[in-house]
Amino acid sequence: MFNRIARFIPVLQWGRTYDRTAFSNDMIAALIVTIMLIPQSLAYAMLAGLPPEAGIYASIVPIILYAIFGTSRSLAVGPVAVVSLLTVSALAEVAEQGTAGYGVAALTLAFLSGAFLALTGILRLGFLANFLSHPVIAGFITASGILIAASQLKHILGIGAHGHTLPELLSSLASHLSDINGPTLVIGVAATAFLFWVRKGLKPLLKRLGAGATLADVATKAGPVFAVVATTLAVWVLNLDDLGVRIVGEVPQGLPPFTLPSLSMDLIRALWLPAVLISVIGFVESVSVAQTLAARKRQRIDPNQELIGLGAANLGAAFSGGFPVTGGFSRSVVNFDAGAETPAAGAFTALGLMLAAVALTPLVYYLPNATLAATIIVAVLGLVDLTILRKTWAYSRSDFMAVATTIALTLAFGVEIGVASGVVLSVALHLYKTSRPHVAEVGLVPGTQHFRNIHRHAVETVPEIVTLRVDQSLFFVNARFLEDLLQDRIRPGTDVKHVILMFSAVNEVDYSALESLEAINLRLKDMGIGLHLSEVKGPVMDRLKTSHLADALNGRIFLSQYDAWRALSRGGPSTDAA
Amino acid sequence: MFNRIARFIPVLQWGRTYDRTAFSNDMIAALIVTIMLIPQSLAYAMLAGLPPEAGIYASIVPIILYAIFGTSRSLAVGPVAVVSLLTVSALAEVAEQGTAGYGVAALTLAFLSGAFLALTGILRLGFLANFLSHPVIAGFITASGILIAASQLKHILGIGAHGHTLPELLSSLASHLSDINGPTLVIGVAATAFLFWVRKGLKPLLKRLGAGATLADVATKAGPVFAVVATTLAVWVLNLDDLGVRIVGEVPQGLPPFTLPSLSMDLIRALWLPAVLISVIGFVESVSVAQTLAARKRQRIDPNQELIGLGAANLGAAFSGGFPVTGGFSRSVVNFDAGAETPAAGAFTALGLMLAAVALTPLVYYLPNATLAATIIVAVLGLVDLTILRKTWAYSRSDFMAVATTIALTLAFGVEIGVASGVVLSVALHLYKTSRPHVAEVGLVPGTQHFRNIHRHAVETVPEIVTLRVDQSLFFVNARFLEDLLQDRIRPGTDVKHVILMFSAVNEVDYSALESLEAINLRLKDMGIGLHLSEVKGPVMDRLKTSHLADALNGRIFLSQYDAWRALSRGGPSTDAA
Repeated sequence: MFNRIARFIPVLQWGRTYDRTAFSNDMIAALIVTIMLIPQSLAYAMLAGLPPEAGIYASIVPIILYAIFGTSRSLAVGPVAVVSLLTVSALAEVAEQGTAGYGVAALTLAFLSGAFLALTGILRLGFLANFLSHPVIAGFITASGILIAASQLKHILGIGAHGHTLPELLSSLASHLSDINGPTLVIGVAATAFLFWVRKGLKPLLKRLGAGATLADVATKAGPVFAVVATTLAVWVLNLDDLGVRIVGEVPQGLPPFTLPSLSMDLIRALWLPAVLISVIGFVESVSVAQTLAARKRQRIDPNQELIGLGAANLGAAFSGGFPVTGGFSRSVVNFDAGAETPAAGAFTALGLMLAAVALTPLVYYLPNATLAATIIVAVLGLVDLTILRKTWAYSRSDFMAVATTIALTLAFGVEIGVASGVVLSVALHLYKTSRPHVAEVGLVPGTQHFRNIHRHAVETVPEIVTLRVDQSLFFVNARFLEDLLQDRIRPGTDVKHVILMFSAVNEVDYSALESLEAINLRLKDMGIGLHLSEVKGPVMDRLKTSHLADALNGRIFLSQYDAWRALSRGGPSTDAA
Repeated sequence: MFNRIARFIPVLQWGRTYDRTAFSNDMIAALIVTIMLIPQSLAYAMLAGLPPEAGIYASIVPIILYAIFGTSRSLAVGPVAVVSLLTVSALAEVAEQGTAGYGVAALTLAFLSGAFLALTGILRLGFLANFLSHPVIAGFITASGILIAASQLKHILGIGAHGHTLPELLSSLASHLSDINGPTLVIGVAATAFLFWVRKGLKPLLKRLGAGATLADVATKAGPVFAVVATTLAVWVLNLDDLGVRIVGEVPQGLPPFTLPSLSMDLIRALWLPAVLISVIGFVESVSVAQTLAARKRQRIDPNQELIGLGAANLGAAFSGGFPVTGGFSRSVVNFDAGAETPAAGAFTALGLMLAAVALTPLVYYLPNATLAATIIVAVLGLVDLTILRKTWAYSRSDFMAVATTIALTLAFGVEIGVASGVVLSVALHLYKTSRPHVAEVGLVPGTQHFRNIHRHAVETVPEIVTLRVDQSLFFVNARFLEDLLQDRIRPGTDVKHVILMFSAVNEVDYSALESLEAINLRLKDMGIGLHLSEVKGPVMDRLKTSHLADALNGRIFLSQYDAWRALSRGGPSTDAA
């Protein structure tokens, strides 16, 4: 009984063996992650179009709930860049940024996403995420990174601009170029340049100067905090806010409030599809981070339980003033590298953020938006990986098409159309490939019992026997293909006495294909030619036995292709004896 | 040059060898088909909600154009039941029956459908029709037959009723039951009973009476004509139209008019999706009839050229007062059985119908609608085949689900939702099945070089070697599956030294799966276990050679599984030597 409950509440498993070593490791990791999360939470709230405190709130309750229900020991849950982009793009359809309705819609979006994730997990439908192929995900993340960076340029330039596609964003920026605010631009460019340097140049420099690897790492992670402190001081001392530099301003002090999402039917109708998209993208991103980190420690995660954990986190966000969250890549890696041993590290991070929410929010009053935009830009450009285009091009044109289409359509028409087109295209390309299966005519490799393609290998053949190895499951998309192919290969007046279909690669024969095989059988029978099957797999054979074809087959079914070849080429038992 | 043109205009091929025998055979077939088509054309026009002459017009120009561009030598093109149902259901959204706008919308629908068909044929995209699986088509045709029969009951009862789904039709009929017209009911029931008897009882009776097979056949086909003549006379002699029996009334005498479809953007936006659906359904129905008839004479048809032929026929219908047409099953079979040798039979049928349009239309003035409804009902109930439910249930649950869903949703929500759900469900079920592929652990069948499932056959195994035969192409939907499976099967501390993946059934490895294989390779390498591949097919090998995996593989790639087994179980070459 306990085990059955523990399966759904993993904290009951790892909690029983929790000891002092694990506690101190978790505490250290939590401290590092908390420091990193404060500016990140503010920044992603800004990206999502929400007030800064929403970012902090979204990092507290969700982390605790994930610690209870999630299976990954290293995943850090909270606002992330891509999900924040999806959020702002979904909310733009239903409310104006800055209004109360906008914040409530964000809660509703988190609620719908949480409910969908939890339900999918409870129904064990996690495999559905497999419909997103790696190229589609890679293309989508890359395009999202570019879109996010472009959307933050307005903060760097100190101008107003809006849009959810690259053309909209760029033309909007271009039309406001005359409004550029000088001091904002200086802060923005300086912060961006500094953060890039921290990322690329600081670590090697520190190592050259003899610093330990850990120190270099910590210094690198602290870069954004340093930029925040420096630019905040600059604005405060120089009164730059009077010169038009936009600042974070007043952030309410206190613990996350209890909030209620609106469940009006209009809002649900408008937001359910974006919520599904956010859930799927967030889940895929989160689970791939969690799996990578778990594999390094020979641990496993349970994707369906992950859905429940992320669902609980999002439901938590909906009732505590947050917005949609998921497991973030960079924060999870930091958590892992800092030595987090259990999900308790997440809970301690939540404690740290609560302290920040209660005590530290006045300190960010003068923090310029341009600095937050700089941290976002530098973070998301790490997501942009255009090498996937080259890699897929080299390996397979259809994977390349999927990734190129996803990138192009996401940039041109926004995130929703982009990812939907990528999925549809992946499925369509796969079906197209299976609709014209590879069929090899095979012969015996001399001295073996092995049969290979007559066009690729020097093999023995006999004129009375044609053996076709069908390199694809037979189902509705390609059911007629084999029929047409045999009609071309076996013409009236041929010497062929036996056709053997070698089914070693046929993993399924659906009803449409069964009807096609029956038609082939009849046609060959009319011509006095036997139709035989060889190497039929167990599951396929089980199914064929229930069909009319098994009785009506004008030939035999052989265990191996070699048996078939021996029996038929020696003038073995006639086809009618079968 | 001539051949290249002739490829697109088949008449140039068969026309050159046309002789007197073919001519006389074609003339006889044309005469029989013409007699059968006159009531059928009127009836399908009524089903489509159009005036009776539209049915005749739709059988003239389209037939001639198909004779020029089509490849089937037996197909008879014109209005058919299922396409007429799709037409009335599409037009109900844009215009009121009986208005001029309704007729123009029918022309536009034919135009859009013709353009789509022709374009698809020119682009050689005929394979797209394969996405409709046999169960979906069978379910759709069956449900359509039921819907059509239900929609004609109002004519038998002499009441008004409307609706495009079974619940709508039945409740509408029920609410008008008090308006039943007695004389109409008598005519309708008598005609229906007579036509059923002709279909089921007449032929055996005539044969028992010693009539020849041909005579019995002709008498059976002439049944509808006899019903038309008898009921028309009855109405005329007894003045039944004064008692409320609805009759065909005045039909304009003359050749098909030249008409122009409306190309207003609003109409195109409303009708393009139904036009695509009509095209696809019409094409699938037509091509399957054509293929069946061609196979009987060892002829072939070219599906892409068929698309062009049907496209031309529909464009012709759009400019000559018709509505969407396709190759009909019953008329094509009649044409074939009557001995039609070439598409010229179709052209002669068109001549016969022209004569009818010019001279015979006054004769149908007193023809009751109830008789036409009876001919439709008897014809479409031949389409209803509920045994497909039993057959698919016995063979495969997923095929059964596809057919049952298509039938249920078509009846409950109409033709468009029904067929769309069927297609989506077929694709989803197929992908679901491939997402959890069958993977068999195999061993050597003693005394052979053949490897089979250790759980199904008595085979030899060696503890250091695990051979997994992957019974599915590896692509994004199942990419992670193998990774998870190996993580379960090969745990730390195992005795296993070599894992062989037997790729005899792997027909594709896409980029997502390649990344998974790389992850498997790294993980096994960390554990000091070799990863080997055997029986990799040519096309898959070609692709793998371009990847990083081929170099990084911690093991070897063997031509056959037996080679791999011999080399590794003898302590053959070590994995690093590969």
